Amino acid sequence: MSSPSGAGKTTLSRKLLADDKNISLSVSVTTRKARTGEVDGKDYHFITKDRFEQMIARRELLEWAQVFDNLYGTPKAPVDAALAEGRDVLFDIDWQGTQQLAQAMEDDLVRVFILPPDADSLRTRLITRNQDSSTVVAKRMAEAPRELSHWAEYDYVVVNADVDRALAQVVAILTAERLRRKRQIGLSEFVREMTTKL
Amino acid sequence: MSSPSGAGKTTLSRKLLADDKNISLSVSVTTRKARTGEVDGKDYHFITKDRFEQMIARRELLEWAQVFDNLYGTPKAPVDAALAEGRDVLFDIDWQGTQQLAQAMEDDLVRVFILPPDADSLRTRLITRNQDSSTVVAKRMAEAPRELSHWAEYDYVVVNADVDRALAQVVAILTAERLRRKRQIGLSEFVREMTTKL
Repeated sequence: MSSPSGAGKTTLSRKLLADDKNISLSVSVTTRKARTGEVDGKDYHFITKDRFEQMIARRELLEWAQVFDNLYGTPKAPVDAALAEGRDVLFDIDWQGTQQLAQAMEDDLVRVFILPPDADSLRTRLITRNQDSSTVVAKRMAEAPRELSHWAEYDYVVVNADVDRALAQVVAILTAERLRRKRQIGLSEFVREMTTKL
Repeated sequence: MSSPSGAGKTTLSRKLLADDKNISLSVSVTTRKARTGEVDGKDYHFITKDRFEQMIARRELLEWAQVFDNLYGTPKAPVDAALAEGRDVLFDIDWQGTQQLAQAMEDDLVRVFILPPDADSLRTRLITRNQDSSTVVAKRMAEAPRELSHWAEYDYVVVNADVDRALAQVVAILTAERLRRKRQIGLSEFVREMTTKL
């Protein structure tokens, strides 16, 4: 799931994870400082630049990217572990990360882009988030057009005008994708067994 | 939407159409006799073999097939009209029709296969439907394995153990497919306009 900063993606992610216990959140590693209220290991794994570079070198990241002056990445091990247990994994990442993940995961990645309903609400949400300095807000606003421009690289687009409606739409996407034939393990066996009993 | 006879596809279709007024049912033409309770123009257009052959010759059918001794086909004109109005069209057809439709409609066709939960419920539903002669029931039972064998040609598979649950799953598929980027007309313009206001 990607969106420009301020489109409400993080709120949507949290609600989705609270409602559906079969999804694990992929917790990114980052070299940026924690914002007030952010918890290490929950919102991000806050690590040093040295450790980040070590993870790159050891191929422990599924994807990584630099955003402004900070590095962000997706650790591979927790994703492999969750998928092996039959769990789904939610990636709360930007378009750069999505492009790399799409290469790593191919058909198994479902890409959802969250759009704000209009420019004003994006601006308002960025300002009232209030934990970033005005410099950071200005930077994120300046970045928004470029982030928006990547919407067409996604499989699904959800306009977040109302958070409950947007959540219901994301849940429908998840429900549908789980019903895809190719994702339903054991169907072959199920149909074969039924056929023998007809 | 396809399924072997007796998997509950027709009940699901009716509920879906009752709940969502933006879907039109594609009413097939057929040369078979109407069953008790079936309404001409609603369940099928019951037509003669001559008229059916004329429709084939005039290319007025999107697909057609012979099932047992009867011909079934999908008239093209109502589908074109509904799609032009931005409506979705539900096709309640078998695997032969689906294969032909997939060629005619390409990416715009979403294929859903409905499976019965087990062999016994398929048998029970076929027998208790009670409008077919025992010969027809026997024929349909004999056909079921072949119909089932085509499940892997579909995008989605729904197991109809509980009709409300199966309906919710079909609705989720429909909701998700409408959220596909490629189906959301006007998104380019929407994003372009927003970007100019940032």
